[in-house]
Amino acid sequence: MKEKEEIKRICREVIERIRPDEEERRKVKAVTDLIIAKINKKASEMGMEANAISVGSTARNTWISGEADIDIFIMFPVDVPEEDLKEKGLALAKSISDRYEERYASHPYIHAYFYDAEGRTEHEADLVPCFSVKNASALKSAVDRTPFHNEYVRKRIPGLEEEVLLLKQFLKSSGIYGSEQRRKGFSGYLCELLILKYSSFAELLRHASNWKHGERIDIEGRGKYKGEDPLIVIDPVDANRNVAAAVSLDSFCRLIDSARDFLACPDASFFALAKKKEMSRAEFVKRIKERGTELVMVLFEAPDEVEDILFPQLRKAESSIAKLIERNGFMVYRSDVSVEGNKAFLVFELLVWTLPQVKKHVGPPVTSKYHSEQFKSKYKPISFRKRIENGRYVVEVKRNYTDVVELLKNELRSCSLGKHVSESIDRGYEVLRNEELRFFEGLGSFFRDYFCVANSF
Amino acid sequence: MKEKEEIKRICREVIERIRPDEEERRKVKAVTDLIIAKINKKASEMGMEANAISVGSTARNTWISGEADIDIFIMFPVDVPEEDLKEKGLALAKSISDRYEERYASHPYIHAYFYDAEGRTEHEADLVPCFSVKNASALKSAVDRTPFHNEYVRKRIPGLEEEVLLLKQFLKSSGIYGSEQRRKGFSGYLCELLILKYSSFAELLRHASNWKHGERIDIEGRGKYKGEDPLIVIDPVDANRNVAAAVSLDSFCRLIDSARDFLACPDASFFALAKKKEMSRAEFVKRIKERGTELVMVLFEAPDEVEDILFPQLRKAESSIAKLIERNGFMVYRSDVSVEGNKAFLVFELLVWTLPQVKKHVGPPVTSKYHSEQFKSKYKPISFRKRIENGRYVVEVKRNYTDVVELLKNELRSCSLGKHVSESIDRGYEVLRNEELRFFEGLGSFFRDYFCVANSF
Repeated sequence: MKEKEEIKRICREVIERIRPDEEERRKVKAVTDLIIAKINKKASEMGMEANAISVGSTARNTWISGEADIDIFIMFPVDVPEEDLKEKGLALAKSISDRYEERYASHPYIHAYFYDAEGRTEHEADLVPCFSVKNASALKSAVDRTPFHNEYVRKRIPGLEEEVLLLKQFLKSSGIYGSEQRRKGFSGYLCELLILKYSSFAELLRHASNWKHGERIDIEGRGKYKGEDPLIVIDPVDANRNVAAAVSLDSFCRLIDSARDFLACPDASFFALAKKKEMSRAEFVKRIKERGTELVMVLFEAPDEVEDILFPQLRKAESSIAKLIERNGFMVYRSDVSVEGNKAFLVFELLVWTLPQVKKHVGPPVTSKYHSEQFKSKYKPISFRKRIENGRYVVEVKRNYTDVVELLKNELRSCSLGKHVSESIDRGYEVLRNEELRFFEGLGSFFRDYFCVANSF
Repeated sequence: MKEKEEIKRICREVIERIRPDEEERRKVKAVTDLIIAKINKKASEMGMEANAISVGSTARNTWISGEADIDIFIMFPVDVPEEDLKEKGLALAKSISDRYEERYASHPYIHAYFYDAEGRTEHEADLVPCFSVKNASALKSAVDRTPFHNEYVRKRIPGLEEEVLLLKQFLKSSGIYGSEQRRKGFSGYLCELLILKYSSFAELLRHASNWKHGERIDIEGRGKYKGEDPLIVIDPVDANRNVAAAVSLDSFCRLIDSARDFLACPDASFFALAKKKEMSRAEFVKRIKERGTELVMVLFEAPDEVEDILFPQLRKAESSIAKLIERNGFMVYRSDVSVEGNKAFLVFELLVWTLPQVKKHVGPPVTSKYHSEQFKSKYKPISFRKRIENGRYVVEVKRNYTDVVELLKNELRSCSLGKHVSESIDRGYEVLRNEELRFFEGLGSFFRDYFCVANSF
């Protein structure tokens, strides 16, 4: 009982800190309304049957103070040809922006800047053209689903917005908020659904602390999804979709772990963001010396692609290179990948990074006459070192690589690396170890996280 | 056809070299007869109903020139009490020797020395008391079987003696003659049976080159033996016994391998004994440096026990220590054991002999709540390094041993070492690496064999 009170007290405190005040809410609404009005006016001038709506956390009052992302979807009738939607939709969005960038997620969209009287950026917004489909199962593309999500949540969330804010802040603090490939955590929409399911932040944590692998949440009870993800949350607007498909096993487990820890010892620190102090090069060298491991980095220019395409390729490369390393007899202790600024890199921390010249090559069983003859004729030049161990021929051969850096310098291209990573590596890459690492922008925070891990532990 | 002629030519040549000449045979027979006469005379003086017989290779004309071992069995009636046989049998044997040593195989026996006129040792012989049982299945002890083996072979081998000699010399050259635990090769009796089975040395090789694991030879066709040894040769005088039980998988394979090589390229070198040049300490250091491995020796005083008891214990210790080494994260490349003079030792050649301080300790799956709580409370002091990998808790702990020599110096006694080895190690041992090795008597020939392997390869 006392702990429940304590949780309530902490949550009230946190809410005061992260809830947007009246002023912020008013401002966001005013900007949003203004942009929508501009789009609708322009559309009618251009003779287009388009209708702009506000979606996302700012449309549902579930954004954390200071982090308002204004998302405007420009809805076109389904009979508009796809090419027209892309062309005219983007043209419309561009025409009302003071400045813009064309971006791409599953579909192209416009990131728009709006200036103040002095010509400085005052507001930003994402402007996304989409089709106004009849229902979420008649999608023409993934973005068409968003207005349905918006409607579903907007109707049900009022009164629970603060619980959503608490959950988002809690996840941010654990480093697992956001469904992007770099993080593989919990999206904003997923947070809202979890709160709709359990009605409060604290109640969600109580359930999460008992979650099992494959946990299934189906608010509408109509789920048809058959996948085997760690967490399955059926999309209320699309019974075939798992909203939590992007949540990795480890993100899933980190929520469970943090939930248990918080319920056992409620503390405001569970909502604090990690200190952003970077690790210095000197600290890094000291740390690596203490550990006694060898840290080897494969460094190259970050391919000009969005992170959600890049990170899966980097992780594929990581696993393929780790296999190369272990196949050659070395031992990987840990590995990780990242993109910081214009650099992409893979890091391998090794338990064994040098090996003796000599290598045992195990041949066929002696009793297998045919294979024995093949083997003996193949290894004739070194047959004076041939011996029998456990009924098999054994020869000693010279190891191809006695040092892991040499291996990576020569054999990296034989790994399956993914298209863009592979192309960038073909243009050149470095393999650096321990003190050879140069501390470019962002590497200090990467190693802070690598060595210290999130503060939820 | 040409090769068959070549094999015949080589065999004739070898036979000329290894067959005892008339003079040697006469002398061995004379000495044997003399000792038997002495024993029988003495027995009747002592009022004992005992009867000495000649057994073994000298009794069957199957010894290699210069290597005559005279074996005399003193047979007592089965109704003599076992204590009397031991006491009086040994007393009788001692009484006719000029000097003797009491030895022990499966039963105690006397190794006797006979002097010439000047008091120098002229002949030696093993004198073994046994029971004169009715048949080989009514044994009172393993030695009682020998007279039956003797009878079986003596009756059938005449005319095939030279084939036995060729086989013995061939096996010696391959390093697999002798059933003692140090070698685990082919006994003299086994050689005789193989020749009885295949009628000639060359014919045996032809069959051996096609042998499979579990090869079964049953001359009398009455075998009941059920074991799963690599080679099974049913004892013609005891259907439940495998005469080849002591032949290890690798000795079995070495015969197969040598047989194929000899048949493919017949050469007198297959009957030559390895050059006995020892490896010097300097050569050893050079060789180990070339290989790049670390050679670690566990050295202690050889327990005062016969080798057939010692070697199985050393091999047990070898496997148990190798497991200790690998359990601690190091990597064994090869290992071996031996006894040379009054030193016993185990040798481990390592691919990885040092490791970083840091060690990953993998805990329970996060979703297993009970075990997670146990784990987290156990590792509370280092919980700031806790992280989640593949759904499991992982902590970094300090490795107990970062150097394999430290490990062996501290943890050797935790291994299962066998009674006598364990007792000797309790009295003190050394762990030495590479250049630290002192080259005591016999170590040079051990390393010659370790690095160069038998000349049959």
